This record gives sequence, C-alpha cells and structure tokens, in this order.
Amino acid sequence: MKKAVVLLSGGLDSATCLYLAKSQGYDVYALSFDYGQRHSAELEASKKLAQIGEATEHKIIPMDLRLIGGSALTDDSIDVPDFNENGGIPVTYVPARNTVFLSIALGYAEVLEANDIFIGVNAVDYSGYPDCRPEFIEAFEKLANLATKAGVEGHKMTIHTPLIDLTKAEIVKSGTQLGLDYGLTVSCYQADEQGRACGQCDSCKLRAQGFQDAGLPDPTRYV
Amino acid sequence: MKKAVVLLSGGLDSATCLYLAKSQGYDVYALSFDYGQRHSAELEASKKLAQIGEATEHKIIPMDLRLIGGSALTDDSIDVPDFNENGGIPVTYVPARNTVFLSIALGYAEVLEANDIFIGVNAVDYSGYPDCRPEFIEAFEKLANLATKAGVEGHKMTIHTPLIDLTKAEIVKSGTQLGLDYGLTVSCYQADEQGRACGQCDSCKLRAQGFQDAGLPDPTRYV
Repeated sequence: MKKAVVLLSGGLDSATCLYLAKSQGYDVYALSFDYGQRHSAELEASKKLAQIGEATEHKIIPMDLRLIGGSALTDDSIDVPDFNENGGIPVTYVPARNTVFLSIALGYAEVLEANDIFIGVNAVDYSGYPDCRPEFIEAFEKLANLATKAGVEGHKMTIHTPLIDLTKAEIVKSGTQLGLDYGLTVSCYQADEQGRACGQCDSCKLRAQGFQDAGLPDPTRYV
Repeated sequence: MKKAVVLLSGGLDSATCLYLAKSQGYDVYALSFDYGQRHSAELEASKKLAQIGEATEHKIIPMDLRLIGGSALTDDSIDVPDFNENGGIPVTYVPARNTVFLSIALGYAEVLEANDIFIGVNAVDYSGYPDCRPEFIEAFEKLANLATKAGVEGHKMTIHTPLIDLTKAEIVKSGTQLGLDYGLTVSCYQADEQGRACGQCDSCKLRAQGFQDAGLPDPTRYV
C-alpha cells in the first residue's frame, strides 16, 4: 500500500485532507506540531482524528515557534484580532510556518520512503497567507525533488493540495460524504481547553459560513 | 546596519560563514539547532563562536530530528561509518536537514525583517548530500520569496553560500585571515564531550586534509 504523510493540525481542513488521502487508498502517516499554539485543544483534536481516521502512525513534533515569535498565534504579546476586514496579511500569519512544516514532512516522508505529502491549504486562506498560494506549493515541490535522496534517485515527491480550489462549503461537503465528524475538529485561533470556539476570529467566521453555505448543520461547540 | 541570519552549527564551515558575514558588514543573528546530535560538543562550540564572533543574538532551537530518524547522526541504531570511499549518499545524511534549518532561518529572518541568510554549504559536501547542491539553494531562494510576507511585499530574500565553490583549504585560509580560531570549532560526527575529534570519520578526514592543503597548522584536538 502506498504511504502518504498528511499534515494534521486538528482543524477542519487538515482533517478533511486525512479523509481524502485515505479515500484515495493511501496508508496515512499523520504529522502534527506542538509549535507553541495558544491552546492545546487543537493538538488533542489531532490525536482523536488520527485515531478515528485510521492513520497508521501519528507523530507530534515539538517545534517551538514562539522562540522566533512574530505572530499573534505564537507570541502572547500580540492579540488575536476579530475578523480581518481590510485584507492584507493578517497578524495571525506565522512566519514561514508552512515552509517549516512541509520541510519536516519531507524528512519524515524520506525516512518512510513515501513519495506523497498532503497539506490542507485552500483558496480561502491564500488570499491572506503567502504560504498557502499555489505558486508556493509548486516551488516547494520543486525544492523537495532537489533536497532529498529519493529525489536524486528519481522517485518524484508530490505535494498534494486537494482543497486548494475548494470553498469551505465544498470542503465540509466532501468530508461529510466520507464520514468525517467535524465536531471533532478545532479551527478557532483561541479555543478554550475543552476545544470550544470563540465564534469571533477569522477562522471561526470562515468555518461557520462554510457550514451555512453547504446547508449542513454546524457541529462546532462555541463558548 | 543590515541584518543577516547565519546558520551556525559549531563546525568549521558555519563558523567561517559567520566571520565572512561580519566582514561584509552584517549584523549577525546566529541560529543553531539542538536536533538530537550524538554529542553536545558542537552546540557548546556554537555558543563560544557566536560570542567571540560578536553575533548580536544567538538562538538555539530545540528541533528533535530523532523523532523522524533515518540517519546515523540522529538514530542511535545506525553506526557512524569510517571514510565513505564508495561515494553515493552517506548514512550520515539527515533527511531534509538543510531544508528544515533554512525554513526556520527564513521564519527568523522574517521576524527580524532581515533579507539575508548565510549557510555554509560547500563543494566538498555536495558530492554526497543532495541538500548542499547549488540547484537546491536556488530552489530554496525561489521558495523563500514566495513563502513570506516580505517576499510578497517585494523585499527580496537572498540565500548566501559564500563557501559553495571553495575547497576546505580555501575555507580555512579565508577564516584564518579574518582571525577565526578553528580550535574552537567541532566538525567530528562523534566528538567526545570535550569536543575532541575521532580523526576517522568523513568529516574529520576532510577537515584534516583542508589544513594540510592550506599549509596551516591543524588546531583540532583529537581523542
């Protein structure tokens, strides 16, 4: 069975990615990061999702991005804002986060002799975050094939972004069809310890709109 | 003064990079990784070098690559071999190591609003390690300019590889001219706790040959 590394944050998008990878016949190796998030609810969610989604293995890598700071998500001195109405790159952007996560996924894939990595970047995100854009993913894939022993030996590494052109509504529809219980996922930037969402931040607003547009009940637990 | 992030392992190459960056007028922010190396002597060396080389800041990021394994340098079940005579990619290759390190350097540079990153890859290494080749560095630089807020806003990020075309002899000559005390650097893959080198591994052989070819005394302390 072909192996894939799936980046799994515990949020709605990455959980959908895990289910999509399984539905495409991959043996899934889930990878999460303890990067100094404001709350641990997301990581707890990733553990449950890896188990219920039948990942073969789930690794949580300690990677403290607070040491470099620079984001509302990893620096306690920067507040998480309400919905970002004026566009631009939000303060919740974590410098080079996806580059770092994909790099470690690449190392893990190389050790596993896997040629496939799944990441749940999507269209709604890449309006704001530079490292969610298709051109970033293409550049990373090119790098991956130059960076590794596997690449040198001709085993092409593919970065899969199955959500990249989907709206939030399409994402939740596809996961729901595959039996994913979105009540287990945590998207909120400032969820409480029980994983209950604030309902106010960018991430909460986009998620709630997704369920509404899909005509599906919103299973999110709010504070 | 312009800022640069310098990847500093505590070895001969990265120490030379630090001195070269300083000599080019950069305010140096040194970055090291506690990645589950077999010994701590290299990290201790990096601390001394950052201090003596007058880095403005030195961060050591815990990043345990043993969790993904796959290399003699991070997996205790794989032995460090003697000199790799038959070519090919050596077992001391750490999967995706330079990709991971450059990614974190990129995040740090973004937080600092620095546009320059120095990494001490060189010609002697890239015969064996895929992530020391010029085409890898070019691909990373391209990625860096797509991955970041700075890149999107038009501040070009440059990855400097001042050693890439130098032989070990040329490297030690240039560092010596800048006043670098190579006795402080640790290159051995299996140095003891006092930083004394084995004299047998690839890294020791290449280093010793460098001093010999340069006609300089070898300040390395051997076991």
